[in-house]
Amino acid sequence: MEPERFQRQLRFIAELDKLKQVERRTYLLDQSRRETVAEHSWHIAVMALLLAEYSNAASLDLSKVIRMTLVHDIVEIDAGDTFCYDAQGNADKAQREQRAADRLFGLLPDDQAAEMRDLWEEFEARDTAEARFAAALDRLQPLCHNYATGGATWQEHGVTADQVVDRNQHIAAGSNDLWEYAQQMIRESEQKGLI
Amino acid sequence: MEPERFQRQLRFIAELDKLKQVERRTYLLDQSRRETVAEHSWHIAVMALLLAEYSNAASLDLSKVIRMTLVHDIVEIDAGDTFCYDAQGNADKAQREQRAADRLFGLLPDDQAAEMRDLWEEFEARDTAEARFAAALDRLQPLCHNYATGGATWQEHGVTADQVVDRNQHIAAGSNDLWEYAQQMIRESEQKGLI
Repeated sequence: MEPERFQRQLRFIAELDKLKQVERRTYLLDQSRRETVAEHSWHIAVMALLLAEYSNAASLDLSKVIRMTLVHDIVEIDAGDTFCYDAQGNADKAQREQRAADRLFGLLPDDQAAEMRDLWEEFEARDTAEARFAAALDRLQPLCHNYATGGATWQEHGVTADQVVDRNQHIAAGSNDLWEYAQQMIRESEQKGLI
Repeated sequence: MEPERFQRQLRFIAELDKLKQVERRTYLLDQSRRETVAEHSWHIAVMALLLAEYSNAASLDLSKVIRMTLVHDIVEIDAGDTFCYDAQGNADKAQREQRAADRLFGLLPDDQAAEMRDLWEEFEARDTAEARFAAALDRLQPLCHNYATGGATWQEHGVTADQVVDRNQHIAAGSNDLWEYAQQMIRESEQKGLI
């Protein structure tokens, strides 16, 4: 064990604790409070395990999908959670998150900093089957919560059905099956007047 | 897609949301509140990614370690979090958790129910290198938080240094390096009068 390497790893692991304090817009299913980013990351990691069979890709590196879901939002420790329907927040999101990635992954030994950054950048780029599937889960989970809570977040922010379709349609790039289900939830929510 | 299969998967995924409501004894590092089991599960999954090099095993199936950390506490949705120094709670813990596993994993299609249960039982048995390493992380994380928060949970419950050593020594079975570091934290905490 190299003491300096280990200290850098421990420093980063302690920093991760802050992701338990970053709140998302999504409510827990009983609407008692919003979920934290750490909780969301865990939830979609387990979803990856269970729903991999619906990926469009003939072969999928599931282990990589899971690693991506675990690290995809770590930058939010510094950059905060940007609500996906917030046009203003999304304008400088990329820049804020790049700075966050520099600082946060920079705490790690170089090899692990590169590994984390590669996973995060692959997720963001959605150029691989693994990234597209991880991104599909990242959209599907809040959609399920909104559907199940009578559109709680949508109504709070006056989100329209067109906006929901527009923001979520990249689910189809990861999984046509899951996108079909997502569209069904959106249609039903619209019919019920929830969006 | 088989509709019934998919509905069972969705039902289980919705049930997972409840793990965000199960509170552990461990405090966040800023002591503002206790962490949830979902947050803890995410934290040790990322730790597995970063600390795998310290496993005693010459070769380790890291993907399996990560899957174990993700599912190891799902039974606590029904069984609750049993504080590891609570002798009474630990007396019937196994029975409560078996019942919880029956109900929770039983929501899933049979093949996935078996996969989840196998992962959980392997974790509990600590008979494989992967289970021993996952269990080491499961002990190391709260130890780090107790050390960093001036022994907050230990003091609240009057835990002694001998109890801490006794409860955590199986870290050594997964990683001698991490156990050495754990012992150092325990010694320092004792010297400072925190345990």
